[in-house]
Amino acid sequence: MRATLHTLEQTIRQRRTADPSTSYVAKLTARGRGTMAQKVGEEAVETVIAAMTGDRMAAIGESADLLFHLIVLLTDLDISLDDVMDELDRREGVSGIAEKAARPTD
Amino acid sequence: MRATLHTLEQTIRQRRTADPSTSYVAKLTARGRGTMAQKVGEEAVETVIAAMTGDRMAAIGESADLLFHLIVLLTDLDISLDDVMDELDRREGVSGIAEKAARPTD
Amino acid sequence: MRATLHTLEQTIRQRRTADPSTSYVAKLTARGRGTMAQKVGEEAVETVIAAMTGDRMAAIGESADLLFHLIVLLTDLDISLDDVMDELDRREGVSGIAEKAARPTD
Amino acid sequence: MRATLHTLEQTIRQRRTADPSTSYVAKLTARGRGTMAQKVGEEAVETVIAAMTGDRMAAIGESADLLFHLIVLLTDLDISLDDVMDELDRREGVSGIAEKAARPTD
Repeated sequence: MRATLHTLEQTIRQRRTADPSTSYVAKLTARGRGTMAQKVGEEAVETVIAAMTGDRMAAIGESADLLFHLIVLLTDLDISLDDVMDELDRREGVSGIAEKAARPTD
Repeated sequence: MRATLHTLEQTIRQRRTADPSTSYVAKLTARGRGTMAQKVGEEAVETVIAAMTGDRMAAIGESADLLFHLIVLLTDLDISLDDVMDELDRREGVSGIAEKAARPTD
Repeated sequence: MRATLHTLEQTIRQRRTADPSTSYVAKLTARGRGTMAQKVGEEAVETVIAAMTGDRMAAIGESADLLFHLIVLLTDLDISLDDVMDELDRREGVSGIAEKAARPTD
Repeated sequence: MRATLHTLEQTIRQRRTADPSTSYVAKLTARGRGTMAQKVGEEAVETVIAAMTGDRMAAIGESADLLFHLIVLLTDLDISLDDVMDELDRREGVSGIAEKAARPTD
């Protein structure tokens, strides 16, 4: 398995206390949770637009941006990627028996 | 490294052709890309709201939902998680030299 | 000028205290601000998707949904449509002189 | 009734063909529908965040931004505010009899 997201998570944790004038993560951290949350929302909308235009390269780039900013926000909430992976594992375990019941209704 | 996301990606690929009456992924697939994109947008907004209320458990659940639906959408675009990880690795390589220049301006 | 939005605003204010089992506005009010905010986010994403697919009828319907839920949310914040119109009037007055300077940078 | 939104709509229509170097509307128009849709999504998320932090002044400002960019997007789709108002009037007429049935399920 690739270490990309966990390495990124470690890097983001380290950069939070860096100089905001040189580190993008430190700048987001200085601006506060509202700015981090805003970026998650923005990148999700950009991913949606890239998907609807069928632009694969843009969708890859925006998804990378979305994952990056999601980890920034989760880190600010003191939530680790492992916390989210545990939740996904728990759901898949449940859904091995009955997928639909385990998913939110829509 | 954990296999959670890659296992989830494989499961999602397999379920796309399942029976929409029993598989949530097959149902989303039947409804089309607009519905998948809508779910990514919705879960991102729910993540934003959970973060702004400081509800850690909700933020973990909504982030899991967001990752799940992002993979559903990417799969529909024939984009693999590895494509997105490659992009994140490329950026971190670049940003080892100058993080800020490699990030989008905001 | 049409009275549509102001009539809608009055109706929404009245329905907030109605029976949640028969009034959609009362149900949203009972669920709280997070649910109202979530609906604004969802309808905005649906408007985005309708616009990107070029579906005019869907874009009209989703824009109507967006305006409806925006007024529900503003009402919960004790903000009137007139408060927002005042802000728009103020900006246009400023932008008569210099539009670009009055707009947020992007 | 106030003329704010309809005056704004007229102004936006006129500015679409202005010089993008001095008009924000012309600049958005030059960038295309994806950029306009992105702005609607962004301002909706900012409205959500302002609402969740209970910041009334920010919520007024972000709602004004949202309405402004929604009209920009609708204009690009050749949809008038009156088209959306007609839809809202139609729904209220229906919902006089049975509000809940006329609203989308959630």
